Amino acid sequence: MNLDLIAFDGDDTLWHNERSYRSGREQFLRLLADAGVVLTAEDIDAHVNRIEVENIKYYGYGVSSFVLSLIECAIDLTDGRIAGGDLRGLIDIAKLMLTEDVELFPAAAAIVTTLAASWPLMLITKGDLLHQTSKLERSGLRDSFRYVEVVSHKTREVYEAILSRHRIEPHRFLMIGNSLRSDVLPVVEAGGRAVHVPAALSWSHEDADVPHHAVGRYVEIAALDQLLEVIGPPGETTG
Amino acid sequence: MNLDLIAFDGDDTLWHNERSYRSGREQFLRLLADAGVVLTAEDIDAHVNRIEVENIKYYGYGVSSFVLSLIECAIDLTDGRIAGGDLRGLIDIAKLMLTEDVELFPAAAAIVTTLAASWPLMLITKGDLLHQTSKLERSGLRDSFRYVEVVSHKTREVYEAILSRHRIEPHRFLMIGNSLRSDVLPVVEAGGRAVHVPAALSWSHEDADVPHHAVGRYVEIAALDQLLEVIGPPGETTG
Repeated sequence: MNLDLIAFDGDDTLWHNERSYRSGREQFLRLLADAGVVLTAEDIDAHVNRIEVENIKYYGYGVSSFVLSLIECAIDLTDGRIAGGDLRGLIDIAKLMLTEDVELFPAAAAIVTTLAASWPLMLITKGDLLHQTSKLERSGLRDSFRYVEVVSHKTREVYEAILSRHRIEPHRFLMIGNSLRSDVLPVVEAGGRAVHVPAALSWSHEDADVPHHAVGRYVEIAALDQLLEVIGPPGETTG
Repeated sequence: MNLDLIAFDGDDTLWHNERSYRSGREQFLRLLADAGVVLTAEDIDAHVNRIEVENIKYYGYGVSSFVLSLIECAIDLTDGRIAGGDLRGLIDIAKLMLTEDVELFPAAAAIVTTLAASWPLMLITKGDLLHQTSKLERSGLRDSFRYVEVVSHKTREVYEAILSRHRIEPHRFLMIGNSLRSDVLPVVEAGGRAVHVPAALSWSHEDADVPHHAVGRYVEIAALDQLLEVIGPPGETTG
């Protein structure tokens, strides 16, 4: 591929993320059970999903948003009867999630370091600004990324604005990520290239149907260690 | 002044912000009183301040951080006895603060529009990414700003990184803001110029003593309408 810029998603592409949310949800189920809520895990999960997606417009993506949604769900599902003392557990979950170690996926460090030697790399991640930059620092990969973009949403317009600001032709831009909805389809729509690396665990909100026009316009690989083969050796660059 | 870039802070510089937090705190006091808490407003405020500043390292700046801190305070100050139903009022405060109208300070729109005709303008604001960009959109000033930087902290290093990325000489950069701690002192330390516009209401956390070396290295004005006089006509630019 002839590329002027290679960008990676962070959460569930370079490092584990969703499992931390899953663990938070499991603690939430236990906390509700202890508070006498008798709903099934499925019913509770459905309520959490609904509130979480509704609240994106207020709080955006990230741990603060997640935990504010859990607090709201706990109040809803107990008709306001849950005690503040029980909700303290949710505050603790937030602080734990925000400070726990960042664990890279296998091969992530090697791949990023290798690519950084031949191309400028950018991290494009959505969510909480402080937490995302903190995770990048703690990942040990900060020095490999020339650019970091923390965005509120990953839409076609957001990608187009980033490419325009950096004066990159879309067809010379490659995005790598685990989310069809956020990392692949909007990039393809903007005329860019994309590699989809599905994660074992992904948030259901990130699922997407692949529209007809996007079929065949991106590459899917099973794991990051296949990435160098897809990209090939550094070609001629115009940058 | 010979300038290549003029930057503004947003909250309490271009638009009202602190009064919304004050109003949130007043609602919090009423909510605690209704829940039977008998502490004085001063004691409650002191506790809120302490938790809020402690929590910056977890949640950063912004409304989500503020409301998560209020929830934590309410649990602390009632020894966990406050009911979830009472805490719902805090969730409502968050959603209200995140969606209420953005009200510009007098002259803000005129000054920004006038300056944008002669200089590239940047908004440098700290806090929640989604909320800050949403406020800028709703302020009606989006088109006047060529660049927008939402940052987690406003330190000397953060300003230096912004200037370096945009290839701006510090002495040809001017920052305008209401906070000595965030908008003025770190810019002066980075070799830049600054105008301090104190706001009628400011968060105590933004106060700062002016170190000896910074005295006389920035200009203070009483209101935004004095800004054009301080900056003077567009001079020679190197950009």
